[in-house]
Amino acid sequence: MLASKQSGNHSFDLAGYLEEYRAQVDRYLDDVLPSGETHPRVIHRAMRYSVFAGGKRVRPIFALATAQVLERPAEPVLPLAAALELTHTYSLIHDDLPAMDDDDYRRGKPTLHKQFGEGIAVLAGDALLTLAFQHLAAQPEQVEAERRLKVITLLSRAVGTLGGMIAGQAVDLLFQGKPYTAEDLEYIHESKTGALIHASVYCAAVLCQADDQELGELSAFAARVGLAFQVVDDILDVEGSSEEMGKASGKDLEVRKATYPHLFGLSGSKKIATRLVKEAVQHLDFLGPRGQILRELARFISLRRS
Amino acid sequence: MLASKQSGNHSFDLAGYLEEYRAQVDRYLDDVLPSGETHPRVIHRAMRYSVFAGGKRVRPIFALATAQVLERPAEPVLPLAAALELTHTYSLIHDDLPAMDDDDYRRGKPTLHKQFGEGIAVLAGDALLTLAFQHLAAQPEQVEAERRLKVITLLSRAVGTLGGMIAGQAVDLLFQGKPYTAEDLEYIHESKTGALIHASVYCAAVLCQADDQELGELSAFAARVGLAFQVVDDILDVEGSSEEMGKASGKDLEVRKATYPHLFGLSGSKKIATRLVKEAVQHLDFLGPRGQILRELARFISLRRS
Repeated sequence: MLASKQSGNHSFDLAGYLEEYRAQVDRYLDDVLPSGETHPRVIHRAMRYSVFAGGKRVRPIFALATAQVLERPAEPVLPLAAALELTHTYSLIHDDLPAMDDDDYRRGKPTLHKQFGEGIAVLAGDALLTLAFQHLAAQPEQVEAERRLKVITLLSRAVGTLGGMIAGQAVDLLFQGKPYTAEDLEYIHESKTGALIHASVYCAAVLCQADDQELGELSAFAARVGLAFQVVDDILDVEGSSEEMGKASGKDLEVRKATYPHLFGLSGSKKIATRLVKEAVQHLDFLGPRGQILRELARFISLRRS
Repeated sequence: MLASKQSGNHSFDLAGYLEEYRAQVDRYLDDVLPSGETHPRVIHRAMRYSVFAGGKRVRPIFALATAQVLERPAEPVLPLAAALELTHTYSLIHDDLPAMDDDDYRRGKPTLHKQFGEGIAVLAGDALLTLAFQHLAAQPEQVEAERRLKVITLLSRAVGTLGGMIAGQAVDLLFQGKPYTAEDLEYIHESKTGALIHASVYCAAVLCQADDQELGELSAFAARVGLAFQVVDDILDVEGSSEEMGKASGKDLEVRKATYPHLFGLSGSKKIATRLVKEAVQHLDFLGPRGQILRELARFISLRRS
């Protein structure tokens, strides 16, 4: 059904793809998460509040698109897609806490700690991270055990302290209001945001039994797209209206966070993002026309308005 | 070497066992955790600060003792032992946060957020939880993949929102200052503390390829010991001097937490703990003399002073 839409460059319906993928991911997440009536209700309602707060599902969509370009079925990748979104949501909840970025709004809604209190927000984040690993470990046995363990290892590294999300967030906290170099900035962005986007593509490729050449090219693609994604985020923080971003814009500058616009200016940052995406898609050449959906997604990342 | 000490009931040297186990676990944890010089240093120093803050290693010791009574080597259980302690430490860090129990001291030292700030404390907790799963997934292949996945599943359930630690902590938060029943209390204690102690024994038994009868008996043993452990914790909170507990005693009553002494009185609570341990050790009958170390550990749990 998805494939029938891929009839040519001009008529490529990216919005249609995104919507279909998103609906598929949302249905799956709805199954994975305990219902809001399950005891203890408060924690399950909190988890659902944040997971269903209107996220774009960028990471799950990268995973599913990777399966598609490798011409493999989506089903074995769905548990990964869910785990990626649960992990991403956990990181947003904890990053929004007063002790971290102290954000009151996200996607136009009160952040979890504003709605449920800080204690429940800490616990809901912990619970989403735990559920991500639990779901990967317990997923139906359509993927052999060794491969599932490998994906758990890769995802935990993308979250962890050696170049993963937590490392990026820790360094980000440290550099607030302090001088930093382009190298520091790249480290923060690659680890804080890039690592999980990289894992979205790379873990999906592992689940799809991609060969070494495919893994190498997809890895290079994903590393550049992941960094581009955060550079664009920085740009949108300066440019975007509060309405479009759903949170206070210009906040990064206000708290003097390490950002690309701060170091390279807006137009310099845009050039960097464009270059990264251009480099990224070159690594998809081996896929030929099959790679279109990933190419379009990468371009979408650099052109998005929110 | 450990076995040579098991020469008879009268000469049983529990303290010697505990010390030897603890040293083994500490050496292993030191290997598992990135050094304090590893970038980003602040997060690795924070993780080490809490992991090496003088914990008794109760959960790892239960895991290693389970391997011993099943007459299996310790090595395949060590990654689990480490994962249990990392998980336990993560939960202490997050529980101590101002938004949760708001504790300034633990084991006589400033809590992590007092020492490193709240943001780093949130991240260090997240990192320890992540590392626990990462280490279980990536452990040396002396245990087959399916069994490692099963242990990850069991550990994540013991942490999670369906009767795991997070469920217990969420309900504990909810009931502060509110009326509760004996049933509520048992749920909180079994999930907040019991689940991880249960997992310590049960996951070790799974790694040791215990048969169904062994698993059933060890599970019944561990469930009772886990609950007894928290009942004794409640008692110590009332009785213990601040010095022995390393934190402000009587704090549970002050914040009107759901506790056994509050519902059953001190002497009633002690009777409950004694009964639970007695019931627990009965489930070790199938082990005969081999079960001595687990029996002694269970009794130690109910007699400890801190």
